[in-house]
Amino acid sequence: MNAPIEAGPDPAVAERRSEVVQALQGILPARCVLYREEETRPYECDGLALYRRLPMVVVLPETEAQVQDVLRLCRRLSVPVVARGAGTGLSGGATPHAEGVLLGMAKFNRVLRVDPQARVAVVQPGVRNLAVSEAAAPHGLYYAPDPSSQIACTIGGNVAENSGGVHCLKYGLTLHNVLRVRVVTIDGEVVELGSEALDAPGLDLLSLFIGSEGMLGVVTEVTVRLIPKPAVARVVMASFGSVEDGGRAVAELIAAGIIPAGLEMMDRRATRMVEPFVQAGYDLEAAAILLCEADGTPEEVEAEIAQVEALFQRCGATRLQVSGSEAERLRFWAGRKNAFPAAGRISPDYYCMDGTIPRRCLGRVLAAIEEMETTYGLRCANVFHAGDGNLHPLILFDANQPDEVDRAERFGAAILELCVEVGGTITGEHGVGLEKINQMCVQFAREELDKFFAIKHAFDPAGLLNPGKAIPTLARCNEYGRSHVHAGAVRFPEIPRF
Amino acid sequence: MNAPIEAGPDPAVAERRSEVVQALQGILPARCVLYREEETRPYECDGLALYRRLPMVVVLPETEAQVQDVLRLCRRLSVPVVARGAGTGLSGGATPHAEGVLLGMAKFNRVLRVDPQARVAVVQPGVRNLAVSEAAAPHGLYYAPDPSSQIACTIGGNVAENSGGVHCLKYGLTLHNVLRVRVVTIDGEVVELGSEALDAPGLDLLSLFIGSEGMLGVVTEVTVRLIPKPAVARVVMASFGSVEDGGRAVAELIAAGIIPAGLEMMDRRATRMVEPFVQAGYDLEAAAILLCEADGTPEEVEAEIAQVEALFQRCGATRLQVSGSEAERLRFWAGRKNAFPAAGRISPDYYCMDGTIPRRCLGRVLAAIEEMETTYGLRCANVFHAGDGNLHPLILFDANQPDEVDRAERFGAAILELCVEVGGTITGEHGVGLEKINQMCVQFAREELDKFFAIKHAFDPAGLLNPGKAIPTLARCNEYGRSHVHAGAVRFPEIPRF
Repeated sequence: MNAPIEAGPDPAVAERRSEVVQALQGILPARCVLYREEETRPYECDGLALYRRLPMVVVLPETEAQVQDVLRLCRRLSVPVVARGAGTGLSGGATPHAEGVLLGMAKFNRVLRVDPQARVAVVQPGVRNLAVSEAAAPHGLYYAPDPSSQIACTIGGNVAENSGGVHCLKYGLTLHNVLRVRVVTIDGEVVELGSEALDAPGLDLLSLFIGSEGMLGVVTEVTVRLIPKPAVARVVMASFGSVEDGGRAVAELIAAGIIPAGLEMMDRRATRMVEPFVQAGYDLEAAAILLCEADGTPEEVEAEIAQVEALFQRCGATRLQVSGSEAERLRFWAGRKNAFPAAGRISPDYYCMDGTIPRRCLGRVLAAIEEMETTYGLRCANVFHAGDGNLHPLILFDANQPDEVDRAERFGAAILELCVEVGGTITGEHGVGLEKINQMCVQFAREELDKFFAIKHAFDPAGLLNPGKAIPTLARCNEYGRSHVHAGAVRFPEIPRF
Repeated sequence: MNAPIEAGPDPAVAERRSEVVQALQGILPARCVLYREEETRPYECDGLALYRRLPMVVVLPETEAQVQDVLRLCRRLSVPVVARGAGTGLSGGATPHAEGVLLGMAKFNRVLRVDPQARVAVVQPGVRNLAVSEAAAPHGLYYAPDPSSQIACTIGGNVAENSGGVHCLKYGLTLHNVLRVRVVTIDGEVVELGSEALDAPGLDLLSLFIGSEGMLGVVTEVTVRLIPKPAVARVVMASFGSVEDGGRAVAELIAAGIIPAGLEMMDRRATRMVEPFVQAGYDLEAAAILLCEADGTPEEVEAEIAQVEALFQRCGATRLQVSGSEAERLRFWAGRKNAFPAAGRISPDYYCMDGTIPRRCLGRVLAAIEEMETTYGLRCANVFHAGDGNLHPLILFDANQPDEVDRAERFGAAILELCVEVGGTITGEHGVGLEKINQMCVQFAREELDKFFAIKHAFDPAGLLNPGKAIPTLARCNEYGRSHVHAGAVRFPEIPRF
């Protein structure tokens, strides 16, 4: 556990800060440079509030040219740079560097162009995820990836973390919905990666960049794909007597070739946590419920819903309900989407994990997590993107009990390492950030980390962009003491057998 | 034009060859090392037969361990390595290196596993594209990307070139259908990139690797996504009085939110070239025909076909025909799929180009190509993936007229540079290889080429993997004398406004 770290009163640090602030004031309007504690405090953490640290200085540029100037300056003065969108990330990717610049992109908040013919939107990175769909709505179009935080999170942050959402099983992650990004490198060069064509010549730097967690450059413009809003969407809600039964239903559904628009599972602890808060009408006796959405034309949806109902019944569903109206559909989802705030109602703090496992291991992993509750003396509610095997265990704890913080963190690490053990990965959609940096040592072998570093070096030779995040140093892995072992091949990463 | 180059009788070359052959014979069975001219001759070129060159030696390893040994040996002796699948590529990506090893992967021809539950297949790279679908067929599944050469081309080659096909508008390129690759690096390490999960932690090296044209490593195993075979597929064939009208119909179709399974255009020269060969029933009076396929459930297909017919009629189609049977559907496609062999019937040689343009520029670009026919004194037939703006002009020439070879090559270069000029790219699905290496100087700026090289260096510091392909040196670009200029941002690559 990183204890809260603050820039101390060390005179060398103060002198450095004053040098950097002065240099920044020379290239930016005064309103764009924040350095007093009361101004920098709001930036001390992102959505992973376990990690807090005051940045040396916050800059809020207003133009791409200013971003170029800031990065050139940081390069010249060897100042670390952490870019930040809305700060809703859950893995500490935007946790500030105590001796670095926190580069807030909040002022890049314009939708530049919506082209309904080409079905693309060009937006600045500080535009909120939901605002893109709102801008496209008059044309019957929307932007598919929908993280739970979509009201607040920004497209720039989505690019950094390759964010998903409940619909990514059918519509893909950020990677599958971004066509082009405009990026400023640490040398202050502006480059564009990707194209609006299906393929692009040369190496695929766009895919490399998406999900790179601020380590390769800073995004200043994003071109996203828009898709037609489906005419109809309906949800089947099914109850199961055991998590294993629910898991089997998920596996059979996928094997039957059905690709639902969303396929989510919640265990009893999660439904009971969320129901008093949202009154979604969840079956509180069921060991697990599944929410399965079909979208498309009315005929398609009707046919798919019938297939899903029959299959769930065959798999032993104890109760089935189909949303009869849009209001009811939204109510069914409301519980799932509000699971995190609901956790906040029944526990002073919660820690949301994010790992993926092969779908066939669902039952086994959930049983193991239940055992861990005893080991670590903490409760855990499970909500997850069942269709793609992406778990979000919510560990409930009280940060005022220092011991509980430590136990929550060890509990989380144990879950992630279990994911790797069964052939899964340590992140499904939240990124590695600071949070999972140790588990990267478990996930990857030395040769793989070497390749990551070599690519990082190609973009950022001095290591100034978001240092200490996403890729652990070998020294850190040695210190962590648990390393990746795999007979035969080194793997990038372990293979979940979905 | 590279004239045919052969390993000369230079004694230093002969000595080097004998050293390398001997070393290879030390690590491989004799049947796996070919070095006599009659043995190496079949490998002198790939599908771009304009470029021919005898390799120093051909190796045909049978196991991954042998591939590791070969690459370690090449690294130790500083011998260039060119990997090759079936050699059907059209950009010279597998053209041998005169002082290098041609690493043929033909013996890696086993389908290792078809998992209908997880809907994946694990195959060796020498498995033919169509063989994957054949292996999956008993489960009602298939592998979506279908290059015209799918009977012969291999999955390994598809990965190297990020191959597409007529259905990639709806189902994506190789990139979108490969989940994981197992790769041997030039140091002989085995690594696995990607996972069967939707996202993977760390940098997206899988996407970086797909389409990297043999420059980063050698694939030894590929996990592909399988999808359910649609219940029904039908094709609308529409005639248009001008290429512009056809182009407008394509733009309106996409804008209407219809994503057909295939959307192809052929101009009159192409239909007249192909009709006597395949008797597809094409309208030879039409300036252009469109083939638009709908697939899915019978209800979906019926609805989409009705929409497409109405839209084509509104856009001025002069004749409409819908396939009434599977045999008729295949006949409609036969002409499109056989355009290349048909060109061989009416011209001693043909040169198939591959560039993409914004859909809205179709009319303008085709008019310019028609003018170029006069400039270069050669005929050109146009077939293309209209839905994604991917052109395949077929330049007809006679290689026995040395002047015509040169004119064909200049004609092709002019088409590619026109693609860049209108905001497109120099390759849609065939890769850069040797063929388009000069046009990479037009497509990309120096900063971009620098980044490509830095990544290449991270994987292959000695530059032994497929040297001279895909990424031009700055010296070459200076020599070529036409370079990328763009006001403001450097672009990777130019933005086609689809």
